[in-house]
Amino acid sequence: MKKFTSIKDVHNIKSLLSLAQELKESPFKYDSLGKNKTLGLLFFNPSLRTRLSSQKAAMNLGMNVVVMNLNNDGWTIEFGDGTVMNQGTQEHIKEAAGVISQYCDVIGIRTFASLTNREEDYQDSVLTKFIAHASVPVISLESATLHPLQSFADIITITENKIIEKPKVVLTWAPHPRALPQSVSNSFVEWVKETNVDLVITHPKGYELNEEFTKDVEISYDQEKAFENADFIYAKNWSCYRDYGNTLKNLDHWVVNREKMKLTNNAKFMHCLPVRRNVVATDEVLDAPSSLILEQANNRTYAAQAVLLKMLRNED
Amino acid sequence: MKKFTSIKDVHNIKSLLSLAQELKESPFKYDSLGKNKTLGLLFFNPSLRTRLSSQKAAMNLGMNVVVMNLNNDGWTIEFGDGTVMNQGTQEHIKEAAGVISQYCDVIGIRTFASLTNREEDYQDSVLTKFIAHASVPVISLESATLHPLQSFADIITITENKIIEKPKVVLTWAPHPRALPQSVSNSFVEWVKETNVDLVITHPKGYELNEEFTKDVEISYDQEKAFENADFIYAKNWSCYRDYGNTLKNLDHWVVNREKMKLTNNAKFMHCLPVRRNVVATDEVLDAPSSLILEQANNRTYAAQAVLLKMLRNED
Amino acid sequence: MKKFTSIKDVHNIKSLLSLAQELKESPFKYDSLGKNKTLGLLFFNPSLRTRLSSQKAAMNLGMNVVVMNLNNDGWTIEFGDGTVMNQGTQEHIKEAAGVISQYCDVIGIRTFASLTNREEDYQDSVLTKFIAHASVPVISLESATLHPLQSFADIITITENKIIEKPKVVLTWAPHPRALPQSVSNSFVEWVKETNVDLVITHPKGYELNEEFTKDVEISYDQEKAFENADFIYAKNWSCYRDYGNTLKNLDHWVVNREKMKLTNNAKFMHCLPVRRNVVATDEVLDAPSSLILEQANNRTYAAQAVLLKMLRNED
Repeated sequence: MKKFTSIKDVHNIKSLLSLAQELKESPFKYDSLGKNKTLGLLFFNPSLRTRLSSQKAAMNLGMNVVVMNLNNDGWTIEFGDGTVMNQGTQEHIKEAAGVISQYCDVIGIRTFASLTNREEDYQDSVLTKFIAHASVPVISLESATLHPLQSFADIITITENKIIEKPKVVLTWAPHPRALPQSVSNSFVEWVKETNVDLVITHPKGYELNEEFTKDVEISYDQEKAFENADFIYAKNWSCYRDYGNTLKNLDHWVVNREKMKLTNNAKFMHCLPVRRNVVATDEVLDAPSSLILEQANNRTYAAQAVLLKMLRNED
Repeated sequence: MKKFTSIKDVHNIKSLLSLAQELKESPFKYDSLGKNKTLGLLFFNPSLRTRLSSQKAAMNLGMNVVVMNLNNDGWTIEFGDGTVMNQGTQEHIKEAAGVISQYCDVIGIRTFASLTNREEDYQDSVLTKFIAHASVPVISLESATLHPLQSFADIITITENKIIEKPKVVLTWAPHPRALPQSVSNSFVEWVKETNVDLVITHPKGYELNEEFTKDVEISYDQEKAFENADFIYAKNWSCYRDYGNTLKNLDHWVVNREKMKLTNNAKFMHCLPVRRNVVATDEVLDAPSSLILEQANNRTYAAQAVLLKMLRNED
Repeated sequence: MKKFTSIKDVHNIKSLLSLAQELKESPFKYDSLGKNKTLGLLFFNPSLRTRLSSQKAAMNLGMNVVVMNLNNDGWTIEFGDGTVMNQGTQEHIKEAAGVISQYCDVIGIRTFASLTNREEDYQDSVLTKFIAHASVPVISLESATLHPLQSFADIITITENKIIEKPKVVLTWAPHPRALPQSVSNSFVEWVKETNVDLVITHPKGYELNEEFTKDVEISYDQEKAFENADFIYAKNWSCYRDYGNTLKNLDHWVVNREKMKLTNNAKFMHCLPVRRNVVATDEVLDAPSSLILEQANNRTYAAQAVLLKMLRNED
């Protein structure tokens, strides 16, 4: 595996899923595989789960880890080709990626959505340019439009918690005080479609996701109807794709609460965290035994560890 | 040991002290005990000794260490129960503590005093809430009102440097340009009371500490009288407990200088660092052979290592 | 080796160079030498190559690494002797250096040029004071006036890439939007003079470096003439030494471009990075096969590793 940026980079999902489950059973089984290998983690923005679970995954394999907060510990990065760099940016992505590749055996990088330039965001140009100039395998720790390690962990979590063969999974839009990227939602749809589930997406009109992801998926503007018979409720806020990066008002009633959960088939509740309590979902929902939010975070370690293992072994 | 937040969490001080001294003699004796174990260090505010000595302690035991600057590398944390999180805070302590517990085997956390809300500070609510939601052992790296690793290191230092069986130890208030917490002073009193010393506290009127800590201790408003026959002078600034968080003016003459040290029984000088030179104490005092300030910092490693060892072994 | 701050600290350059080349061949040959040893890296300002290559070098030797961003993770440091510290600085260099020495076996420190006080900068007072109060070996990760690890890596790179016995090496001043220190240039001259090369320095009038470094070196104000027959072009910006820290206007034509490179003897192009593309040198030059910029960065690891090895073995 030379890069892990979306489900398209995964040769065989079932086998990767099995590997993650094996690692969860025996986290230290391959703890000498990473000896004298270094994982570099590069962050352009805050992170808690990603930062810690990636380090944990690497250490479980016996790797060294170095962490850089770019634009903070290091230099401000230029992404434009041909730019005359006489302004604020200090180092070009060409050098940054080329140099870091020499110090690391695998690189994880967290990039970001502008939420202003849709075309550029959906080209994932920061990540794409980094990969183009890197000479070692690169893992996306969330890009402008996808969050594959989160979605992989979500699939592990659903697999572990499903009671019926083909559960009904509902991705529901939920309120949030700030405009957020579509990355988690895009990625969740992309991954969950490849597993044996009935997927329904529910959101207010205007919050339609990029059809590239949703074209074969049932979409409902009626949240309560969508919740009926659901086995898993996955809540997530995102900003508009069409009116790119904007948000619509007066939608606080889309919060996931106990009353709505009662419409489901005793559904498990999921969210990628961090979650704004009593805005996205109520305390009752988040603290209920049916809430899987901590388990999702736990599975981030084994998702990352499975990907790292494939890269260290140079397997597909 | 499930938590280390005050002397009340210590089952047997003498045995913990012996363990620290054994580790100082042979720091790497147990360097495989921590294999595949991770210490997570969480900071809400700056730290040098705590940050480095805790890492050193963990590495001496063969543990991995991950460091997070919360509110900076990660997300802004909400501590209120039932809060509708539609403002600045991004992640609730419930999730933060629950998630981090899954990636770490022991967590060290540095919290802070508001110095505005005495009741909340003295409930140590940030630390207490973190522990309530954590599922692994937690070490206080200084809380709003206590600094137990510092005090443990101070006890080690006094034990190593005392010449007579029951030395006179004087905790003296000293000037500082900013309002500081009472944590080091409270904690020092709490720990040193449990050892075989004569303890005297001296400070200007108005700087009385919480009586919960000082009720059996001799207090003097006359610094020079208190210094007479002292074997150890421990200097520290703190802000008012009664008029909570405030400071009083025109007290620069409380600086510890050579003239005052001459009143003592060749006393050793102690301070927890960082120290404002020529404000808290003069260069002459800090640079004298009787100054133990570097040795106190050195003992921070073995204090932390003893606590980590107890936690890794699941001993009291 | 007790300190590594300039070429003057190197007993035998040829042997140090051989050691670095041996380590580049077999990076993990001595991977148990650093067991239970800790490298502390202290930064006052941003860094990418230095931060990562130093960590890599230490990990290749099996050392632990702790990284501190001083003034950020820690406390604001006071460097003045006798200062009454009742203002912004929180910890004196005496305590900082003394304390950190107790937690680390080797310390790397990156200090900075004020570019306002030439005398103080050229005394390298921050580094010098740190060393004076440290009790373990100290490596300069760039000081106010020198950057020895960079220059050592540059010498390795020239040695690996020279075709003739005694190549012509040209250090050329190049434009930059900000005032930069003279450290890389001073240090390059200091190191390259000790190897078997013809060195020429070319820069606009007014950019003369400190004669302490350049006294035996040919200096030309005619960049194109200097480039004739060059085997290596080393581009670097620096601010004025005489009119200390100032910069002169209208010198954009000093950019290194393809036309100028054609005047050389198929010269290799070098720069220490980060480089402002199309300001210091054009894309064509930086991206040409003759560009050694990534290899220079790669050699930073082995330069640092050779120095660490000498220190761990307590050799000259």
